[in-house]
Amino acid sequence: MFPEPIRKFIDVFSRLPSIGPRMATRLAFFLMGLEKGERIRLEHALARLNTLDRCPRCFFLKNETEALCDICADPHRDPRIIAIVEKELDIVSLEKTGKFKGHYLVLGDLPEKGTLMSIHKLRLKHLEERIRNELGGKAKEIVAALSPTAFGDFVTSIVAQEFKGLAERVTRLGRGIPTGGEIEFADEDTLGSALERRI
Amino acid sequence: MFPEPIRKFIDVFSRLPSIGPRMATRLAFFLMGLEKGERIRLEHALARLNTLDRCPRCFFLKNETEALCDICADPHRDPRIIAIVEKELDIVSLEKTGKFKGHYLVLGDLPEKGTLMSIHKLRLKHLEERIRNELGGKAKEIVAALSPTAFGDFVTSIVAQEFKGLAERVTRLGRGIPTGGEIEFADEDTLGSALERRI
Repeated sequence: MFPEPIRKFIDVFSRLPSIGPRMATRLAFFLMGLEKGERIRLEHALARLNTLDRCPRCFFLKNETEALCDICADPHRDPRIIAIVEKELDIVSLEKTGKFKGHYLVLGDLPEKGTLMSIHKLRLKHLEERIRNELGGKAKEIVAALSPTAFGDFVTSIVAQEFKGLAERVTRLGRGIPTGGEIEFADEDTLGSALERRI
Repeated sequence: MFPEPIRKFIDVFSRLPSIGPRMATRLAFFLMGLEKGERIRLEHALARLNTLDRCPRCFFLKNETEALCDICADPHRDPRIIAIVEKELDIVSLEKTGKFKGHYLVLGDLPEKGTLMSIHKLRLKHLEERIRNELGGKAKEIVAALSPTAFGDFVTSIVAQEFKGLAERVTRLGRGIPTGGEIEFADEDTLGSALERRI
């Protein structure tokens, strides 16, 4: 019943996260109600993502015309403090706090369990080289900023082991009751951490 | 902090319905995790929407290479029964029921109140011409398939008035308790309609 371009659009866009067939259908008809120029604007915005690259230093995103990402290139940030994160979106969240002025290493999506994959191992090795070449073999702090899941904790312990000779200290994010959370509903582990790390 | 193409993507895509800045951000990073070929597939799907046109007969969508939309061109449908709908998505919903085998007229998005705009009036005139030219001046049935809002009801009354000499009957969609709905929570109007139209 739909013209083929609509079916194709729904098919392709409904595979994106949080966009099911229903939303893709709405989107297709919404787009058809726009001026052609508006659709072309979206097309260009999509096409321009192809002009992005990974930063060769921290693996965050950068413009292909730049040597480094904005964070690595920022002279006001401290390269001796390095947060290891799983993914780009984690950098977004950390940056929003405005409380971290160091550099990063993006490890890449972690599996739910099992062990580190070669991409993760390569990136950790890469960070070791970075510390040796740029910081004379000693970082001030490595923050293992990984989600406190079982596997995240496992990776944190690998990081602590691997960087113990290469950083003055290896830290992780504090654990406790989230702001707005209720003690009554906190799990034992979280509440235990909150007690141990009381301030 | 983000490279400009990411900011641009978030800016442009977050204006789409149901996609806020948060989802546009997630989407941008998700897309950056895909192969370039996948992103190009999305781009093409978007670009191909520009090869669509409106059916000159019912104003639904059609391929620009076809004279009519698939519904108007379908010889198994009855052109003497015409449902007037507000938007393309309403056709999608009606077609899913599999219970309507007539043709359509897409009126175009209605305002929440006020009166019909010139685009709606032109399309109604167009349907009148269609009935005169194709059906010798008399349709079998005009279904005013408009949402039962105050304004939808107002438009339905206009349609009933305008087509009373051009159709054997002008009908509207039945009203009552939706399947799965509870009597306890039905509003008076709905429950009243359900009583009047009991089967």
